[in-house]
Amino acid sequence: MLAPRFGLLSIRCLSARQLVYSEYGDPAKVVKLQTIELPDNPPPGHVHVRWLAAPINPADLNTLQGVYPIKPPLPAVAGNEGYGRIVKLVYSEYGDPAKVVKLQTIELPDNPPPGHVHVRWLAAPINPADLNTLQGVYPIKPPLPAVAGNEGYGRIVKVGNGVKNVRVGDHVLPAKAGLGIWRTDGHHKEADVFPIDNTLPLEASATLQVNPPTAYRMLKDFVDLKPGDTVIQNGANSAVGKAVIQICRIRGYNSVNIVRKRDNLTELVNELKGLGANEVITDEQLVKEYRGKIKDARLALNCVGGKSTLMLAATLGFRGCMVTYGGMSKMPLQIPTGPLIFKDIRLAGFWMSRWYEDASHVEERKKMYAELGGWIKAGEFRSPSFEKRRLEDHSVALEAAGVQFDKKQLFIL
Amino acid sequence: MLAPRFGLLSIRCLSARQLVYSEYGDPAKVVKLQTIELPDNPPPGHVHVRWLAAPINPADLNTLQGVYPIKPPLPAVAGNEGYGRIVKLVYSEYGDPAKVVKLQTIELPDNPPPGHVHVRWLAAPINPADLNTLQGVYPIKPPLPAVAGNEGYGRIVKVGNGVKNVRVGDHVLPAKAGLGIWRTDGHHKEADVFPIDNTLPLEASATLQVNPPTAYRMLKDFVDLKPGDTVIQNGANSAVGKAVIQICRIRGYNSVNIVRKRDNLTELVNELKGLGANEVITDEQLVKEYRGKIKDARLALNCVGGKSTLMLAATLGFRGCMVTYGGMSKMPLQIPTGPLIFKDIRLAGFWMSRWYEDASHVEERKKMYAELGGWIKAGEFRSPSFEKRRLEDHSVALEAAGVQFDKKQLFIL
Repeated sequence: MLAPRFGLLSIRCLSARQLVYSEYGDPAKVVKLQTIELPDNPPPGHVHVRWLAAPINPADLNTLQGVYPIKPPLPAVAGNEGYGRIVKLVYSEYGDPAKVVKLQTIELPDNPPPGHVHVRWLAAPINPADLNTLQGVYPIKPPLPAVAGNEGYGRIVKVGNGVKNVRVGDHVLPAKAGLGIWRTDGHHKEADVFPIDNTLPLEASATLQVNPPTAYRMLKDFVDLKPGDTVIQNGANSAVGKAVIQICRIRGYNSVNIVRKRDNLTELVNELKGLGANEVITDEQLVKEYRGKIKDARLALNCVGGKSTLMLAATLGFRGCMVTYGGMSKMPLQIPTGPLIFKDIRLAGFWMSRWYEDASHVEERKKMYAELGGWIKAGEFRSPSFEKRRLEDHSVALEAAGVQFDKKQLFIL
Repeated sequence: MLAPRFGLLSIRCLSARQLVYSEYGDPAKVVKLQTIELPDNPPPGHVHVRWLAAPINPADLNTLQGVYPIKPPLPAVAGNEGYGRIVKLVYSEYGDPAKVVKLQTIELPDNPPPGHVHVRWLAAPINPADLNTLQGVYPIKPPLPAVAGNEGYGRIVKVGNGVKNVRVGDHVLPAKAGLGIWRTDGHHKEADVFPIDNTLPLEASATLQVNPPTAYRMLKDFVDLKPGDTVIQNGANSAVGKAVIQICRIRGYNSVNIVRKRDNLTELVNELKGLGANEVITDEQLVKEYRGKIKDARLALNCVGGKSTLMLAATLGFRGCMVTYGGMSKMPLQIPTGPLIFKDIRLAGFWMSRWYEDASHVEERKKMYAELGGWIKAGEFRSPSFEKRRLEDHSVALEAAGVQFDKKQLFIL
């Protein structure tokens, strides 16, 4: 991918920066940083390249000194070597995520087709659902070969004819899962992207689609919670769990957070309490010293299954509801019969992807993003911490995502 | 309880029969059977006695022959000895149902207090909930000592002042569980009884309150079923299970009925198919030859729990619902995580008693009894078969109810 080139542009979307020189001389002095605006569309026959890295070679110094045989007309952009890319991570078969994904360089036509937009994707996290998709065990199965990645955000850099609802410069999420976000650029149907507030920080934008909304909806759509009501959850240190804790704090719900016993428990308890958790207890404590003490929870959130749900169900009050959104123990839920019949508790599942697929949710989706965005910008809602990765490091990143649960992997595209 | 008496009346509620004689002579010839009507209320100072048994003694023959010193004015009702009763089964402590229940003879005032009715209770089944109540493990706990029995029917024989909505002669059920039906007679608040069609057979009336309505409501209140839809249930040979089979047949739903493997399986399969079951399979068959074949059930009814629900949940289609109304295995339900999240299945519980407690259900209750009654009278809906017992045989009956599941125990009061 390395090639000698003239005039390397270093752009970030539409606002590009470049090093230019207007006269020959001391390289340390003649080069100036310049910020330019690029037109929406490159001229016919040209492609828009996002240059990523460039070495300083002796030939560059000689060029700047005017002693090199190649002399571009001045003023000129400096630099002869480097690489840029339009790449994507594709998979053609299901299997070990660290192995089935390949980096592929592609060319895109200059302009997106009518009704399509060119999105410069900017950042994308690796979620458990992505790993499951690559393993072929997730219900969303795009036709293979497919571009991997269900979540992320990008900026619209070009719009095709007839595009009405988004504009160049808009930040967008995929409208629903399965679009394939682990790529630098893509032409997508207008309806396949969903605009968001473009003043949000990168981490927040990249993870606005799955975890905070999962927490948000589970706290809103199943039980009519009032301030002071108790919400109990297991797997409280998951990304969704931390979002639940923060939204509970913001809305005034009492959150009881179950975590597994571990070596660095105090540290975790402090972290979760720092986010606003009212109580953080281990599943062991819930069975022993807390047994029978929590009995009026109105909502229980489950991403673990197995025996954990037996305890969780016992804490629910009359007409309480347990919502399952994950099954980390890989064991079936265990639910006591009595509370189902006599306390009229009920169980439901929640899948963010399905919620997005319902066309009737568009307005509510905007409202939700606006509320979450407001909290994020006000500093009331923190995004998780990330290990940032380049697409080129996909194997390492995917391997880490499968084993390292406390720090999420984020592709910077 | 045996006492010499004159003029034994053998009445059944308001229409009473008695043996009378108008002249002395050959006992086999002078005695005639007479049916009389009794006024609603016995005269002041009198009690209404339901005479139950009377021996023929030599003194009776002598009386009829006119050679006995006691000579009632003729015409007279024959018979000098026998017993009648107003009794109830009470319990003062929780424990083994066959042991904690005692038969108690009581006196009732002549007239029920204002707003009350005198109900002559006629028949009452022994349900699992009754056993659990006596064991103290049921959520309904009347203050002790209490009259046992949650279900049954009776006839109103007297009404107090101000009673508006029921009349003498009406057949009634208890309005809700916990009233204490295992008694011959009781004065109850008008609101504590609920009138039913008084042309229904005894068995149907006595069991109209719990099992058929449980089946009826579970098939109506959770999923909007259409003819051809599949309903799957475990414990299909329970009383509710058989009601489910019949209502499915009447409404055109496809019923898949899971039973445990047993010696007389063919007999049971034939019985359930005779009621209208579309399929009757064992839980073993469901795991093996039927695995993956039933996947579009819209409603699953569970009275077993444990592993059975793991299989049941796997048969549910998108947005299918599992309703739990019992837990015969005494094991927690096991529910797979995947269908909750990806097929949006949900779980609920159903408790007939709670449904009755909701005052907004009165009209729907009338409608339901009318529909069930119509099916019963048209011969489309069969009541379970019963072992009939007298209240005096309560220990034997309660013991049998705890072990003998294929034949229900029914008190004839």
